Amino acid sequence: MSFIATPQTMHFPEALPLQSGASIRDYHLAYETYGTLDAARSNAVLVCHALNASHHVAGVYEGQPNSEGWWDNMVGPGKPVDTNRFFVIGVNNLGSCFGSTGPMHRNPDTGRIYGADFPVVTVEDWVNAQARLLDRLGIERLAAVLGGSLGGMQALSWSLQYPERVRHAVVVASAPNLTAENIAFNEVARRAIVTDPDFHGGHFYQYGVVPKRGLRIARMIGHITYLSDDVMNAKFGRQLRDRLEPKYSTQDIEFQIESYLRHQADKFSEYFDANTYLLITRALDYFDPARRHGGNLSLALAPATAKFLLVSFKTDWRFAPARSREIVKALLDNKRSVSYAEIDAPHGHDAFLLDDARYMSVMRSYFDSIAKELA
Amino acid sequence: MSFIATPQTMHFPEALPLQSGASIRDYHLAYETYGTLDAARSNAVLVCHALNASHHVAGVYEGQPNSEGWWDNMVGPGKPVDTNRFFVIGVNNLGSCFGSTGPMHRNPDTGRIYGADFPVVTVEDWVNAQARLLDRLGIERLAAVLGGSLGGMQALSWSLQYPERVRHAVVVASAPNLTAENIAFNEVARRAIVTDPDFHGGHFYQYGVVPKRGLRIARMIGHITYLSDDVMNAKFGRQLRDRLEPKYSTQDIEFQIESYLRHQADKFSEYFDANTYLLITRALDYFDPARRHGGNLSLALAPATAKFLLVSFKTDWRFAPARSREIVKALLDNKRSVSYAEIDAPHGHDAFLLDDARYMSVMRSYFDSIAKELA
Repeated sequence: MSFIATPQTMHFPEALPLQSGASIRDYHLAYETYGTLDAARSNAVLVCHALNASHHVAGVYEGQPNSEGWWDNMVGPGKPVDTNRFFVIGVNNLGSCFGSTGPMHRNPDTGRIYGADFPVVTVEDWVNAQARLLDRLGIERLAAVLGGSLGGMQALSWSLQYPERVRHAVVVASAPNLTAENIAFNEVARRAIVTDPDFHGGHFYQYGVVPKRGLRIARMIGHITYLSDDVMNAKFGRQLRDRLEPKYSTQDIEFQIESYLRHQADKFSEYFDANTYLLITRALDYFDPARRHGGNLSLALAPATAKFLLVSFKTDWRFAPARSREIVKALLDNKRSVSYAEIDAPHGHDAFLLDDARYMSVMRSYFDSIAKELA
Repeated sequence: MSFIATPQTMHFPEALPLQSGASIRDYHLAYETYGTLDAARSNAVLVCHALNASHHVAGVYEGQPNSEGWWDNMVGPGKPVDTNRFFVIGVNNLGSCFGSTGPMHRNPDTGRIYGADFPVVTVEDWVNAQARLLDRLGIERLAAVLGGSLGGMQALSWSLQYPERVRHAVVVASAPNLTAENIAFNEVARRAIVTDPDFHGGHFYQYGVVPKRGLRIARMIGHITYLSDDVMNAKFGRQLRDRLEPKYSTQDIEFQIESYLRHQADKFSEYFDANTYLLITRALDYFDPARRHGGNLSLALAPATAKFLLVSFKTDWRFAPARSREIVKALLDNKRSVSYAEIDAPHGHDAFLLDDARYMSVMRSYFDSIAKELA
């Protein structure tokens, strides 16, 4: 049984300038906190989320026993990120669909639902918004910023945008930018959504429909790339769904893997916002701190002063270990303090969310050492 | 300048029983032949095609200088498969959309366009149809059967269904079956097509529309999986299409890779049939000669008496070298004659269609040795 989490909301009337040149004002951020901020305000840990997660990192909601947060195995009392020692903050990013201001909300400038007019937000924009939230919470400096995948990009970006506010950056299953193949997968998912007739140019809310066909395709593509070939073979292989002989149909479900993917796709299309999917995949595409340094990541990471832990997973082909090693090398080029663990887990990119004893032990001992620094 | 190729058609009134239990009658096969059948009828080479290719393997059509066949670099006078020595046959498979009977043709039993009612065809069915074509051409035994990818599955299946009719089987960039991940990618492509409102349950012809949205998505997914991550990075990387700064849009083209994929997708959706796409990906899914032998590939390949050449490409993650090695091992378990080449080409699965000096040299010397056997 996990502890009770309580979502909160913070309102920000003042405009936040965005990387695109646009700005957003009068917005809300949904967030949760776990544990107690110490008197020195030194034990705060910010957890940044990836594509379809939220501020609900850990714990369960009152009266909803199955509502565990998305990283409940990592964060909580006695967990690797121990809320008996740390004050942990989860925040839902701008443009998401889980409580913070997003495309399904009203644009204060026009009075209309944002839809496709919601401004493009970047990893850097999210970090700026998170920094304002910390200001309001009275937290000047984080003991650590922590994230996996797209969340890891935010942790890395924190160390560059606000080096003086970050003691430790923990970057899990991430990359210094997306490869062409990563962008390509995102683009197919976006095209599936945008070309769904129910998308209506991103203003589907006013038509009372949802581009579920596109969302389903997007989710299927995502799922395939989160898993490793090995784990898919182990879990599903070539098993037919419910018979020994194929029924020879092009449209019916034949293999177990098809059944699994369709089920995941249906679930996702019921709760995820199509415009949010476009915004978040674009934030992934755009992230590239080395771009303004001619592609030189070592130059790009020079401003970082935090200590780093990087973790990657051998079977992760979406954010392969080689990409984490690029970050490690660039940090070492700058003579930064870096720990790096490459975990031989079979689960592909999804491994960063799963229990693996070696992974959990690396995280636990790193956060133990942070706690000792603070003591 | 390549030689002139002339497509031909053979009509088959008698019913062909299919693996599904259905049958198809009164069908046509489009085919081409290059070179001259020798007096002993011993120098025939059958080339089997993959997903979106056809009987037009080599040469150009009269008056169409840019109409080179899909394997024109491999087959022709003086090419690795030398049409000065071999009588090469290309045949379009049943259910395809390039000349042989397919979903866009009329069902003789109902008088209506087949559409989604075209029977599901398997690799084994195609091989049976090809065998009938060879009967009609008076070819009892092939010097070689040759194919890449899905074409390689047909070559392998020939060696099992008609062992006495195959001297050599050349299986390039192929696999003994699809992995769960392969099936998953096929399934996403199929779902994109089937859920396109213009698909009309596979009977779109009568509505005067084509499910182009779905075909585009299917083609994009295909393209990503045909290429290696490396070659995509080398060719497109993170280059923006036509500017130095991003324009911050979720729907417009931003990166070169997006532009490339959309262009390929648009082209494909103009000429490829949606029902054919479903049929051909299903034929890929179903192929699994080991299934009836409890998954034991060595048992499954015991009937093969041909000599084999297998070729794989190191960066091919769709049909990885490990899959070819499974076939090699199973053949060696049966003490068959096997040559195997693993080519260190950067192009992923697409490599089997491209010029690579080592690859071409392996193919040339293998076919040289076949020619010498015949002489």
